[in-house]
Parts: sequence; structure tokens; C-alpha cells
Amino acid sequence: MRLSQIADAVSGGLEGEDLEISGINTLTDAEPGQISFLSNPIYKKFLAGTKASAVIVDRKQTSIDRPVIRTDNPYHATLKVVKLFYPEPEPIIEGVHPSAVIASSADIGRNVGIAAGAVIGENVVIGDSTAIGANAVIESGSVIGSNTRIHAGVIVRHSVKIGDRVIIHPGAVIGAEGFGFAPIEGHFQKIPQVGTVIIEDDADIGANTCIDRAFLGATRIGKGVKLDNLIQIAHNVEIGDNTVIAAQTGIAGSTRIGKGVMMGGQVGITGHIEISDGIQIGAQSGVSKNFPPGTTIFGYPARPIMETKRIEASLKRLPELLRQVADLKKSVNALIKD
Amino acid sequence: MRLSQIADAVSGGLEGEDLEISGINTLTDAEPGQISFLSNPIYKKFLAGTKASAVIVDRKQTSIDRPVIRTDNPYHATLKVVKLFYPEPEPIIEGVHPSAVIASSADIGRNVGIAAGAVIGENVVIGDSTAIGANAVIESGSVIGSNTRIHAGVIVRHSVKIGDRVIIHPGAVIGAEGFGFAPIEGHFQKIPQVGTVIIEDDADIGANTCIDRAFLGATRIGKGVKLDNLIQIAHNVEIGDNTVIAAQTGIAGSTRIGKGVMMGGQVGITGHIEISDGIQIGAQSGVSKNFPPGTTIFGYPARPIMETKRIEASLKRLPELLRQVADLKKSVNALIKD
Amino acid sequence: MRLSQIADAVSGGLEGEDLEISGINTLTDAEPGQISFLSNPIYKKFLAGTKASAVIVDRKQTSIDRPVIRTDNPYHATLKVVKLFYPEPEPIIEGVHPSAVIASSADIGRNVGIAAGAVIGENVVIGDSTAIGANAVIESGSVIGSNTRIHAGVIVRHSVKIGDRVIIHPGAVIGAEGFGFAPIEGHFQKIPQVGTVIIEDDADIGANTCIDRAFLGATRIGKGVKLDNLIQIAHNVEIGDNTVIAAQTGIAGSTRIGKGVMMGGQVGITGHIEISDGIQIGAQSGVSKNFPPGTTIFGYPARPIMETKRIEASLKRLPELLRQVADLKKSVNALIKD
Repeated sequence: MRLSQIADAVSGGLEGEDLEISGINTLTDAEPGQISFLSNPIYKKFLAGTKASAVIVDRKQTSIDRPVIRTDNPYHATLKVVKLFYPEPEPIIEGVHPSAVIASSADIGRNVGIAAGAVIGENVVIGDSTAIGANAVIESGSVIGSNTRIHAGVIVRHSVKIGDRVIIHPGAVIGAEGFGFAPIEGHFQKIPQVGTVIIEDDADIGANTCIDRAFLGATRIGKGVKLDNLIQIAHNVEIGDNTVIAAQTGIAGSTRIGKGVMMGGQVGITGHIEISDGIQIGAQSGVSKNFPPGTTIFGYPARPIMETKRIEASLKRLPELLRQVADLKKSVNALIKD
Repeated sequence: MRLSQIADAVSGGLEGEDLEISGINTLTDAEPGQISFLSNPIYKKFLAGTKASAVIVDRKQTSIDRPVIRTDNPYHATLKVVKLFYPEPEPIIEGVHPSAVIASSADIGRNVGIAAGAVIGENVVIGDSTAIGANAVIESGSVIGSNTRIHAGVIVRHSVKIGDRVIIHPGAVIGAEGFGFAPIEGHFQKIPQVGTVIIEDDADIGANTCIDRAFLGATRIGKGVKLDNLIQIAHNVEIGDNTVIAAQTGIAGSTRIGKGVMMGGQVGITGHIEISDGIQIGAQSGVSKNFPPGTTIFGYPARPIMETKRIEASLKRLPELLRQVADLKKSVNALIKD
Repeated sequence: MRLSQIADAVSGGLEGEDLEISGINTLTDAEPGQISFLSNPIYKKFLAGTKASAVIVDRKQTSIDRPVIRTDNPYHATLKVVKLFYPEPEPIIEGVHPSAVIASSADIGRNVGIAAGAVIGENVVIGDSTAIGANAVIESGSVIGSNTRIHAGVIVRHSVKIGDRVIIHPGAVIGAEGFGFAPIEGHFQKIPQVGTVIIEDDADIGANTCIDRAFLGATRIGKGVKLDNLIQIAHNVEIGDNTVIAAQTGIAGSTRIGKGVMMGGQVGITGHIEISDGIQIGAQSGVSKNFPPGTTIFGYPARPIMETKRIEASLKRLPELLRQVADLKKSVNALIKD
């Protein structure tokens, strides 16, 4: 592909020679023949040393010693170029591998790919054009929509519902029994977890993330929700549409997360509370109560972010403050004795 | 099942028509024909809108526009009703699937279920009525008791001991090598981890939880211990009977946890310490020393909970305190100059 | 093996009878006939009660009621004895199990072991003497070096590069798509993750740990890096040689960790930053900026450890400080009115 073609595709302006370009890569990893990009200014330091033959830059970037494509938004332009070079970013699973084990009562749609070693239980329903990765397990009675991708090693337990265009990354566990025990005379008796999990359309579930089935009713992951890796979603949690949660966050039982919420990594949310729509939660926060819709909160315990930042700034001065107050006490005592 | 039968089963009093009931569900998920329950008062707001045909309530609840069953403890009554409707909450694995790979030297008890794709290594022993899920792996020399359930995708490494009536949820890894490296001239040499893991009777191990094998001796999970999902138990940790630990908690090497301890989620416990019996630890706490038996601790670093709460309340006033002390200094300096 | 042989092997001095020894174990787990060791003084309390027939001790330890081997470094001596008794600590996977599914285009080296149910995709390359555990999945185009061990249930996604003598523990997921979404009119559109993961020689990757593939370029794990269990490594992260990271730590996208860094468990590191060589980070710290090479940092937010410790010590006095300042204000106001 020529630079001029790329410039056209991203509505950008080419400055320099119209080279043949073989691919796209980061500034540090690009090789001669590839194009790179500068969208986040903190990577400007890598511009001089890149081996890329051309770079996508914004309108203000000064010229460099090789061709550039200037655009209003280098990030969006880069995404377009990625799709030019990788129209199909993931390998396709085609057909049903003979080593897959599929119950005779399963209802498998058209154009479904099932990779080696996958196990599909009794009465499972799989929609058209869905793919199941190698050694994944779909237990009895679960229903999976169309154009969904269940990656290798995923475990979907029984009677779970997964929508269309959902992606579940390797090792995720959907529908394990919730953590429910009733204390009976010093030990804990298991509470049967007879509910289910419902994952709605266009959700994305990260690698080794766990979504437990409900005690009764359903643990519910809304439309377009994006969960990163190693997240814990306890029983009866509900997550509103288009909420995005970063890795290693945990949400305790029966909590309801609103729509369009954004959480950083390693956040913990206590059980049986509500989180309003559009709340943003900083990484590693501990949240045990709700805030107004759209609030940005942060800290352990989580507070509105400006309050946490003021406290943090004050904390640094706390040891000195203790000394100042001790000095003040002496001065005041001396004044009183005068 | 009729409401009168349900009322009898939970020793409750029926008020209203003796309807036919098809199942039980939460207030928000119940459909007409189902019974629901109100045990946690924070869900009272869902009572008016429920579609349930009847509700289990406590003795004090005012009447509603449909039949109720009144009981002293709606929570315990609900558990009983769940068992009426779901006598067998989990699908049963029956027989040995032909695609399972079982070493000829393995000793498999009576009435054992082994699902598709499971791999049972040399000299493994599996007790009566135990079930092994699809694509689970039990490596050589491991011994599993009776009436135990190893779910799909669990990996039990070699020479591990697992008791009776244990449940291990999908994706858990039991007996991986502990994280032990000796620094030798700037890099790290692996310390062989030749110990084992012992999981005692009635333990419950969550999805994708990891319990590492000991360097020497055993990592030990006591009787009736309940571990939630995504927990890390390092090598040579010992956990006393009936201790309960919530999701994403991590316990570093060689730490000994007492009996009847309760930990919230995302707790971290440092290595080589002891935690006394009956200690309760709040979510996200960081614990690096012991406290007296039965203490409730919380915070980062963990302190007795009232101390942490006093500090937290004070923190909010810290920015203002800094200003007050600055004002005081001015006033005192003015007084001194007088 | 006789005690005198063990003493010779560790260049230690035998005091007491030259017994026959059958194995090595911890003080609390050792049985008669075994040798034990006392290297960490906090375990001295277990010395009197051990059933071990002999103990490895340092030069200063007073005599006990059974034979001892005295050495300058009981820890190093113990490691040597472990290797005497366990020359091969892990079971060996020999040959290719007939139930493994290996694409005809895969290039499998000499002396490779592939256990039952493993799935090896198209064009995968596996070096000599490498072993692939049961039900592990290596997707198309991935290249694995020699003498590497991929344990049971590991998922290596497509086009990933893994070096020589690498160990990947069960359930780890290498090369899942990074968590990249571009906000488009209130929902999130997936950004194709078309980069890869490179794991260099002698790295050790813990159970259920996730290393995401890069957006473009590579997520890179340096030589000799040791990652514990349940760690999250996001897309485009780079980790320098011989860095060691404890369990449940998470590193956000595009962050570059230096060489010889050491992190405790449950640490969180924000995205797009650098961490200098040799920095040490205490458990559960939250790191959002860099510090000079070799600094020890700790806390949430992470600060140089002495600063955090000073703040923590001050915090305990904060509630009292509030009272003192209130008293001072009264005294000063009284003085001013005088």
C-alpha cells in the first residue's frame, strides 16, 4: 500500500515521498517499510529513533527527516490504518473439529466454528456464525447468540444466557456457583445457587474473569459492557449498559452498577449497594456507598476525587504538622505562664 | 406446589389465597406464579413492583396486595423453599465419557462421573461418587476423596491430596509450584517446590483460585474452609478449619491463618505471620502483623476497626486542620511579639 | 543417604550420630528419619517439637537433643539437600499422547512431550525438549523455544513468541486481546489488537496470570522475569530482565518496567509510565509516577518508604491532634481576649 493511499483513507495530508508501506507498528517496534504514529505526546521522545519509514502525526508536529501524514486526530487515523492492514485481526475457527464433543441434543447454528477439544453439553443452543475455541466447555442448557466468540479454555456453566456479538476471552468462568454460605453452628452450609448469568449483546469479558451465577434470578451483564481480565463479579450483581471496568476489579454480591460507569483496575465495590450512572472510579478505590450520577471518585475509602487529592496533599505535611502543634503548645503554655 | 404446603415446610403462616406456586425468585426477577421473599430490608423498595404471586416476609411486615407467608426468619425459610424447588441444584455427571483420558494405573471408585475431555494421570486415586468436570486435569499421584466435585477446567497438579465433599470450581489451579527463587548473582534461580497441597473435607475452592504447592511439607486448607474466586494462596500457607475468605484476597508464603477467620475481598496478608482464630478482616485491608483472637481489623495498614474509622473521620478534617494550625501560628507569633 | 554424606555435600559439620536420612521437610511437617532445617529465626519455636531426626542449623545455634549439620548458610545448604533428594522435582511428560491434536503444519522439535488433550495449532513451532501439559492450547503461528514447560490448561493465543527454558504455570493466558476500546457516541468500539507477546528466555509465568497481546508491536517480558500467580500484564507493557513480581499485581497498558525491579503482591501500576531499574515496591502499593533507580517505595499512593512510614505513624496520632488543636485554639483565643 502506498502512503498516498493511506493518506486518502484517513483524510490526511502526505508530506514527503510516496513510499510503499508494508504495515503499521509503534514507534519503538516499527521496522523500515512500516508506518508508525504519534498520538500520545509522551511518546514524542521515541520519534527521533524510530525505524519507521513514515509517521502519522497531528497538524502541529514539526517536520521530521521522513514522510509524514498529517491528520486532525492521529489516534483515529491510526485505528483506520490498522483496519486497512488487518481486515481480519483474529484467526477464524472454521467448521467443527472432529475431536470436539457435542451432545446430540445441542442445537448448533449455521456457520458455527468449534475448535479441537471443545465440549458442548446437552441442550446447548449456539447461534449462527459463533465460534467456540479449543478446549472450551459449554455446559448443559446454556444458550449462546450469534456472531459471538467464546475463546479457548473458557468455561460456561449450565443454563447461562449469552447474547450476540459477545467476546469471552480465554480462561473466563461464567456461571460458577456464587459464594453463599449460611453459618450453622460454627461451620458454613452451602446455599444452593440456582439462578443464572445473563450476558447481553456486544459485551466483552476478559481473560480469567469470573462471573458467578445468581442465588436466584440472574447476575446480569448489560449491553456493550467491557470487562477486562481477572475481574470478579459476584452473584446477583447487575451491570448497566456500556459500563467499562479495568482489570482485577471485584464487585461483591447483589450490587447494581449503573450505565456508562467507568472503573479503573483493582477497584473493590462492597455488596448490596448501587452505583449511579456515569460514575467514574479511580484505580484501587474501595467503594462502600453511592455518589451522585457522573461523580468522579477515588481513594480508599472512595471520596470525590478532589477531596481525596486534598487529603493526600495534606498527608505529606502531617509529620511536620505534629511537630508544629507540639511547638505551638510550648509557646502557648509559655504565654499562659507569663 | 401449593402455598399451604410451602407454609407448612417453613413453619410459617399463610395469609391469603392458597395458590399453586411454580418456583422461587428474587423480588425483581420473579414472574407470576412464583413466590419471592423479603429478608434484607434494603430490598423493601422492590416489594410494591414485584410480579411474584406471593412473598415470604417476617412477622412485622404489613400486609400487601397478595398472599404472604409469615415466618420468624424469612432468610432461613427461603433457603428451605429453594431446596424444595431445586432438590438437585447442579447437573449430575454420570459415568465416564469415552473421550476422557484415564491412566490405566488410576484407581477410580464406584459411581464416579468423569466428563468429556478430562485427563486423569498415573496412580491417581478417586473416591466413590466423586465427579470430575469436562476438560479438568488431575495429574499423576493425586488422591481425591469421595463425594467431591472437581468442576470443568480445574487443574490439579501431581501428588496433591483432596478430601471428601470438597468442591473445586472451574479454572482453579491446585498444586502449581510455589513462587520461590534464590537470588544468585543478579538473577533468580528456581527453588524446587517439592511439597504438596492438602485440602481437607468439606472445603470449597472458588473459580480461578490458585493454591500453590509447598516448598517442602504441605500447603494446607482446613476442614470446611470456603475460598471465593481468584484467591491466591502461596506455598506453605496453612488455613484453619471453617475460615471463610472472599474473592481476590492473597496470602503470602508460610503464613498460618487460624480457625473461623473471616476475610473480605482483596485483602492482602504478608508472609511468615500468624493470624489468630476468629479474626475478622475488612475488605482491601493490608495485614502485616497479628492481632488478638476475634479482633475485627480493617485498613491499609490494618488496625482495629474503630481505630481505622477514627483515623478516616479525622482525615476528612486534615486540610482544614492545616489551615487552622497556620492561623494559630500567626496568632501565637503576634501574641509573642506583643 | 547418610548424614555424613549430606554434611559433605553442603560443606557443613556433622555433630552427632551418622544416621540414615530418607528425606527433607519443614520443622513442623518432618517425620522421623527425615532431616529438617532452621534458616529463618522466626521458626526457632518449632525446633523443640520437630520430629525430624536431624536439623541443618547455622554456626551459632546451640546444640539440640539430636544430630545437627552446621553450615554458614542453612538456607543455601537446604536448597542443595532438596536437590539431592529430588533431582527431578516435576513429573516428566514423555512422548506425544494420542489424544493430543496437532496441526499437520506444526513443526515439533525432538524429544518434545505433549500430554493428553493438548491442542497445537497450524504453523506452531515447538523447540527441542519442550513439554506441553494436558489440555493446554497453543494457537496458530506461535513459536515456543526449547526446554520450555507449558503446563496443563495454559492458553497461548496465536502468533506469540516464547523463549527457551520458560515455565508457564497452569491456567495462564498468553496473548489475549488487549483491553482497547474507542468511545464512539456513548458506546465503545473494539480497537483491533494486532500486536503480539514476546516472552524471553528463562521467564517464569504464574498460574492464571494474564499477559495481553499488544495493540501494535509487542508486550514484552524480559529474560529471567518471574511473575507470580493471577497477575495482569496489559497490552504493550514491557518488563525488563530479571524483574520479580508477586501475585495479583496489575500493570496497566504501555507501562515500561525496568530491570531488576521487585514488586510485592497486589501492587497496581498505572498506564503509560516508566519504572526505573531496581525499584522495589511494597505490597498493595498504587504507583502512578516514577522514582529514581533503586528507590524503595510503598503506599497508596506510593511514596519513598520512609515517607510513607512517617505518615502512617503520624496518622495514628491524628484524632488526638485534632483535639489538641481545638484546645490550643481556645487557649489562644483566651490569651487574645486578655
